[in-house]
Amino acid sequence: MSQNLTHFDNQGQAHMVDVGAKDETRRVAVARGSITMQPDTFAMIRAGDAKKGDVLGIARIATIQASKKTSDLIPLCHPIPLTRVAVEFHLDEAASRIDLTVTAETVGRTGVEMEALTAVNVGLLTIYDMCKAVDRFMRMHDIQLHEKLGGKSGHWKL
Amino acid sequence: MSQNLTHFDNQGQAHMVDVGAKDETRRVAVARGSITMQPDTFAMIRAGDAKKGDVLGIARIATIQASKKTSDLIPLCHPIPLTRVAVEFHLDEAASRIDLTVTAETVGRTGVEMEALTAVNVGLLTIYDMCKAVDRFMRMHDIQLHEKLGGKSGHWKL
Amino acid sequence: MSQNLTHFDNQGQAHMVDVGAKDETRRVAVARGSITMQPDTFAMIRAGDAKKGDVLGIARIATIQASKKTSDLIPLCHPIPLTRVAVEFHLDEAASRIDLTVTAETVGRTGVEMEALTAVNVGLLTIYDMCKAVDRFMRMHDIQLHEKLGGKSGHWKL
Amino acid sequence: MSQNLTHFDNQGQAHMVDVGAKDETRRVAVARGSITMQPDTFAMIRAGDAKKGDVLGIARIATIQASKKTSDLIPLCHPIPLTRVAVEFHLDEAASRIDLTVTAETVGRTGVEMEALTAVNVGLLTIYDMCKAVDRFMRMHDIQLHEKLGGKSGHWKL
Amino acid sequence: MSQNLTHFDNQGQAHMVDVGAKDETRRVAVARGSITMQPDTFAMIRAGDAKKGDVLGIARIATIQASKKTSDLIPLCHPIPLTRVAVEFHLDEAASRIDLTVTAETVGRTGVEMEALTAVNVGLLTIYDMCKAVDRFMRMHDIQLHEKLGGKSGHWKL
Amino acid sequence: MSQNLTHFDNQGQAHMVDVGAKDETRRVAVARGSITMQPDTFAMIRAGDAKKGDVLGIARIATIQASKKTSDLIPLCHPIPLTRVAVEFHLDEAASRIDLTVTAETVGRTGVEMEALTAVNVGLLTIYDMCKAVDRFMRMHDIQLHEKLGGKSGHWKL
Repeated sequence: MSQNLTHFDNQGQAHMVDVGAKDETRRVAVARGSITMQPDTFAMIRAGDAKKGDVLGIARIATIQASKKTSDLIPLCHPIPLTRVAVEFHLDEAASRIDLTVTAETVGRTGVEMEALTAVNVGLLTIYDMCKAVDRFMRMHDIQLHEKLGGKSGHWKL
Repeated sequence: MSQNLTHFDNQGQAHMVDVGAKDETRRVAVARGSITMQPDTFAMIRAGDAKKGDVLGIARIATIQASKKTSDLIPLCHPIPLTRVAVEFHLDEAASRIDLTVTAETVGRTGVEMEALTAVNVGLLTIYDMCKAVDRFMRMHDIQLHEKLGGKSGHWKL
Repeated sequence: MSQNLTHFDNQGQAHMVDVGAKDETRRVAVARGSITMQPDTFAMIRAGDAKKGDVLGIARIATIQASKKTSDLIPLCHPIPLTRVAVEFHLDEAASRIDLTVTAETVGRTGVEMEALTAVNVGLLTIYDMCKAVDRFMRMHDIQLHEKLGGKSGHWKL
Repeated sequence: MSQNLTHFDNQGQAHMVDVGAKDETRRVAVARGSITMQPDTFAMIRAGDAKKGDVLGIARIATIQASKKTSDLIPLCHPIPLTRVAVEFHLDEAASRIDLTVTAETVGRTGVEMEALTAVNVGLLTIYDMCKAVDRFMRMHDIQLHEKLGGKSGHWKL
Repeated sequence: MSQNLTHFDNQGQAHMVDVGAKDETRRVAVARGSITMQPDTFAMIRAGDAKKGDVLGIARIATIQASKKTSDLIPLCHPIPLTRVAVEFHLDEAASRIDLTVTAETVGRTGVEMEALTAVNVGLLTIYDMCKAVDRFMRMHDIQLHEKLGGKSGHWKL
Repeated sequence: MSQNLTHFDNQGQAHMVDVGAKDETRRVAVARGSITMQPDTFAMIRAGDAKKGDVLGIARIATIQASKKTSDLIPLCHPIPLTRVAVEFHLDEAASRIDLTVTAETVGRTGVEMEALTAVNVGLLTIYDMCKAVDRFMRMHDIQLHEKLGGKSGHWKL
């Protein structure tokens, strides 16, 4: 195997990788994840709005805020000044499932996959938190990177 | 449907629920989640140690630290002084999968499910971060609550 | 003048006041503040909801989260585990003014005035942020404590 | 009304606005706010110094530190690397009022109004905190933007 | 050697130690540390006050604030609600040295040594920061615990 | 004395110094510090690994994470996006001493001495935390800057 885990140096010691010589370019990452719940729970969320309890509106804010905390949560991540974060929910009634997609962007020296993924995870956790009193069987799943743009690896799609 | 989302008041407005009248009792929560990767990535992690690059050791620390940031990440969570956090990894070679189990405890007025789940999510994200240079197909899944002890709902197991 | 600023010791040096000997009792604080804007801006906010842009829903979440950051922002504040935070908006069309009231509670050794006031300030700032592209003349004002319950000073109302 | 709240997309969903295509230019914002108190309280603050209890010195530090936490407090704010923060107090004895002016600067893609305003709010809260044991009638008011420089809107003054 | 590092379990894995069964008792810790500098630098600090530049006043505030961030900085520390933090500076002109002593207290289940020590470290760093433009030879040293009270180990003094 | 403490303006008031006109250049800082302990404690740390309790692996992660919190801890520090952080431990058995060296880098407008020094301090504190149950006599010392590169002062070595 010729590849290496870049977060470790030759002695196997963790470091924050040197990105000082990389160009500042536009970088985009799209990550997605899902939470599946009981049909009653799903119905409550779908019925919600600013009048009855807007679960997704609150999760959206937590998602955006979490993107800004990525380097505080993930030990070897570089601090990155995000230039855009967008959040999209898709509701699949047949599956009692909510899909959360986050697009993160920066103009910087390193990619923003972790920012997009961290945002997805915290967004799903926030949905979970607001519904946990009525449903203990919620499950978060299929959290992964879907697209990546910028840097030397160019455009990648799942 | 007689149940309600407790994070909203009668007008559907979000609030941090009043727990002031609840007793301070011992509360435990166990959450689990998994990350599945390519076999080469799995082999790299398994081979790792303090000499060659200890991915799981670092993920363990990020997991514990994240448990302490839960109320900062999840908007309506109460701040909770955790009294114990334990982290366990299980490596399933056949499936190229790592399972992460977190047990969180407090002596307090409200449960610690969100602390255990937030820790699991950030632990999986940290594994992802350290391996993303060699594998873009990692997927986080099956993140859910497995056990809960304390409070008026007593002992619950998935 | 016989009164002293308790945050300073006999030599005039700042300290975090000793509250170790105080009882843990229920403590409540109610704070309020207002933001006045141009009539068009006010109309936009009032028209908003989860479909058209829910300014107040987002401000509500920022308000609650800020209450948990008080001891991080105000140097001499004790860290306090809040047991309840509630947020209420009042819209006064004639005055193009939004009033924000926060009620904070704890069971602890010291009062929660600063938690309620910090939450009010950040809630008003969040409204400001979301409307600043259309109105540079917004003004925050009349931010003060309205009620306080618990501790040796008993019940106080403005 | 042709203007829109830029923090919401076409569907009315909150996002962190895309600033990636904007130029990095010098941007300045000046914000001001006031706290009015009882004359005795005002006298205590004015008498204070490093020997007797330096309320304003401590508030100044909290003000500067808060400017750095803006994007953590205000959900849709971009993280901005500030290049300068200056704080000025003006004491008006006749009115028993302290005015706090903050000037914030960056070289970046978006303005720093929220950084200056957040700093003002936390500075006033810190004065409040240190005097609350002797005065429950303090009131924060007239917090607003006074000047803005840089970006496509050029130079603006209240 | 019969003693063990309690932060590791039987398999040598790090955990946040279970303190749930411990009593909530009053706990005190006193830590001290020093910074030695060039005589000119020392003279500048000693001359400073709220008029000329109050290095120690600012360091005092940073010291108190850092005590509240201990569990965020030290991975396996429990979050602890401090009930008192006091800071004392001693200036030794002959040695061009400033000694910083912090006393931290809580009513809790675990000791506050780390809170006192973290506060000392950050206080010394803040002095360093403010003087680094005039002196690159400052050295921090003799940072250690001096006294500890409460818990099963009783009263201990260096 | 012609030199001044740059963190204070002409009136002696603290400010975050204006660095907006400085060039963005590569800047490096190397800081070092030591912790001396009892021989038994030293032996425990040296024997540690991912199986028996990896004290230094955990301290390394805390060190890297702390570098990212510098501007949150040190009041007048500018927020700086680090581009590299490397950590090295040296074990001196004869002296029962561990030396910790941190190299921090950025491409920015101001130096990274404080980032390197803050990381060293928190790394030593983390070692202390994990060993404090077996040794109350540990002492942190000789924490200072060793090298600095970039900016108008060029290359400097202790």
